[in-house]
Amino acid sequence: MSNQIPQTLKGFRDFLPAEKRQRDGVEHKIVEIFQRFGFEPLETPTLEYASLLLGKYGDEADKLVYTFTDKGDRRVGLRYDQTVPTARVLAQYQNELPKYFRRYQLQNVFRADKPQKGRYREFRQCDIDILGSTNALADAEVVACAYFAYKNVGFETITININDRQVLMETLSPFATAEVSVGSIITTVDKLDKITEEAAITELIAKGLAPENARQVIDALRIAQPSANLQDILSMLNKLGVPDRAVVFNPRIARGLDYYTGMIFEITIPGFSAGSVGGGGRYDNLIGDLSGMSMPAVGMAFGFDRTVEAAIELGLIPTEQAQTQVLVAMFSEETTAASLEVALQLRQHQIATEVYPAFDKLGKQFKLADQKHIPWVAIVGEDEQASNTVTLKNMSTGEQKTASVEEILSLVKR
Amino acid sequence: MSNQIPQTLKGFRDFLPAEKRQRDGVEHKIVEIFQRFGFEPLETPTLEYASLLLGKYGDEADKLVYTFTDKGDRRVGLRYDQTVPTARVLAQYQNELPKYFRRYQLQNVFRADKPQKGRYREFRQCDIDILGSTNALADAEVVACAYFAYKNVGFETITININDRQVLMETLSPFATAEVSVGSIITTVDKLDKITEEAAITELIAKGLAPENARQVIDALRIAQPSANLQDILSMLNKLGVPDRAVVFNPRIARGLDYYTGMIFEITIPGFSAGSVGGGGRYDNLIGDLSGMSMPAVGMAFGFDRTVEAAIELGLIPTEQAQTQVLVAMFSEETTAASLEVALQLRQHQIATEVYPAFDKLGKQFKLADQKHIPWVAIVGEDEQASNTVTLKNMSTGEQKTASVEEILSLVKR
Repeated sequence: MSNQIPQTLKGFRDFLPAEKRQRDGVEHKIVEIFQRFGFEPLETPTLEYASLLLGKYGDEADKLVYTFTDKGDRRVGLRYDQTVPTARVLAQYQNELPKYFRRYQLQNVFRADKPQKGRYREFRQCDIDILGSTNALADAEVVACAYFAYKNVGFETITININDRQVLMETLSPFATAEVSVGSIITTVDKLDKITEEAAITELIAKGLAPENARQVIDALRIAQPSANLQDILSMLNKLGVPDRAVVFNPRIARGLDYYTGMIFEITIPGFSAGSVGGGGRYDNLIGDLSGMSMPAVGMAFGFDRTVEAAIELGLIPTEQAQTQVLVAMFSEETTAASLEVALQLRQHQIATEVYPAFDKLGKQFKLADQKHIPWVAIVGEDEQASNTVTLKNMSTGEQKTASVEEILSLVKR
Repeated sequence: MSNQIPQTLKGFRDFLPAEKRQRDGVEHKIVEIFQRFGFEPLETPTLEYASLLLGKYGDEADKLVYTFTDKGDRRVGLRYDQTVPTARVLAQYQNELPKYFRRYQLQNVFRADKPQKGRYREFRQCDIDILGSTNALADAEVVACAYFAYKNVGFETITININDRQVLMETLSPFATAEVSVGSIITTVDKLDKITEEAAITELIAKGLAPENARQVIDALRIAQPSANLQDILSMLNKLGVPDRAVVFNPRIARGLDYYTGMIFEITIPGFSAGSVGGGGRYDNLIGDLSGMSMPAVGMAFGFDRTVEAAIELGLIPTEQAQTQVLVAMFSEETTAASLEVALQLRQHQIATEVYPAFDKLGKQFKLADQKHIPWVAIVGEDEQASNTVTLKNMSTGEQKTASVEEILSLVKR
């Protein structure tokens, strides 16, 4: 055995209990709402045939797919996103799945990317999609579900920037030329949350637009109006309980990926400046392109890491949250049985309880409780054993109280 | 795009909603108890340096590790088990982790094995371990936690077959010869749940034991008594609430893997014949062997697939369990707003509700509810809209009732 301590691979992460608990907590809150909106869970394998994963999103994406040859000489790859495997599932099980399939999926994906701040080689994706419907009802359900999921995480104000690719196409097509496609104009417009209008105009001119036209692009976006489709969605969102003030028609939102075909949206949290925490839209052709089986779709992806980051930054998750409520100390071998019985009773009352697994000095046992942020320590010494009581120490105040198990239970439950 | 429908890799599985829900349900019940026993969650990456994964459990295991060279020319591998990464975590974060660390971990592991019934190349492992303690208290905590976790899944009777490697060593060492090691004798004994005593005796003779000694091996096991250590554990288990009838001292249990150093146990469910659903024991040297950092440990692994299988077989999980309670039908564009408001109210009362995402014939909408096993359909037609009511259809009886939203809510909640 080498003496060097083995390390985590660069771009990969360990989640120790405190952080893992925060992440699990956010995930639980999000999934609760997915289920309330009728989304059903799906799980696909980590490994797929490489041929399924490659050639789907272009050469740049292909370079980021982890591929290798397995022991049976098959070219295989690690999950790159959740949409391609879902497209495969839709095609492979088409006779088993309902006509309108709404699924959620939370699994890790892999990108052989340069690791940098906030960008990892393995990260959790969290998606919902409604497959099979072209109706605005499906768009509204996805956006409303996203709104309530963020709400359930604890964010008080949530802004949904919403647009329609059709608005962009109709507004910007008149400016397209033989040299500068409407797609290229949209690519520049998409940067308007990061660059100034002047910078965008300069970029459009550099691409080949006449200066007056480049300026008019910005003006045209300023006066653009929501499409009839978007107005339908907005009115449905209102009925589904999303407050009007949370929804902002934003004709500058383009969402880079050109597979979107209709409504698109991005979610930001006022007070959290690191950017959008999630987004999505309608993509009626992608599933067909991926699987060969035509299927309209609308969905969204939660930026899971960023959502957790925002929740921590806004103080929605205590960073030193203990899961365990009581540490039952071990006083001596003679009082072990009585101590274990106390642990049993606490657990029978759904109180998360750890039994100290040794006979160390009490000071050491308190130290473990502190280190694990366990708020209470229960001790059964000889006196307590004789009087059928328990001493409960409050680790934050240092106060101790000796009382019956029933009293201890109600103290801890409070 | 090829016309051939892409498929799942052999040995890998998709979990469609009905099955995924069953698995998530079992996992949730198990984790609930892990937390109640003070175990904390840990997550490690799917990929590790291949050097970490290889050479840990022998040449046969090494052949099963998925390894490859990544784009940065590193030899990497897919998680093979959860113990090796945990050993790495213990060494890498030794200054951050508590002296007594009790963690649970539920992640998928990968084995480049021949797929066969019940054996997959990717499967979920579900482990608990208490690290850092040599005390029987830790052994008892692990076994008690396992008992209550299976109980919480719904199994009414659970049998814990328990033994101590020391019992095996003391009982069987006298029969070891220069030719036949005690380890080799244990390997044969370990098969006694699958082969007859006569077959075991034949095997021992074939290995080189004298026939009379081979017979005495079986007799010796029959009269073996629990070690003092095991008696301590048994008495603690009783105090922790594990009924005596659930615990069987079984000196024939050996648990193949020779890294166990003390108490060992296997859990079976009477009525489920496909074998043990989980097991574990004390392994005080393995973490040191794996990480170079000496650390006593006791833990167990749930056979997750088999536990789910047993729960289904014993009828503990309805196989056609719907998660969604109500499908809100779409009667017409005119009644859409009123229908969406009903969906909002249902969801505000924590009722999982799907909005039908199109304007199909009602018959089709009922069909979708049937297919998804959704028990109720709520309809707001023009009459209902005018009278501010909802018609609720019970999908199993076919009964319909028109009533106020409040009445509908209480019907569904019942």
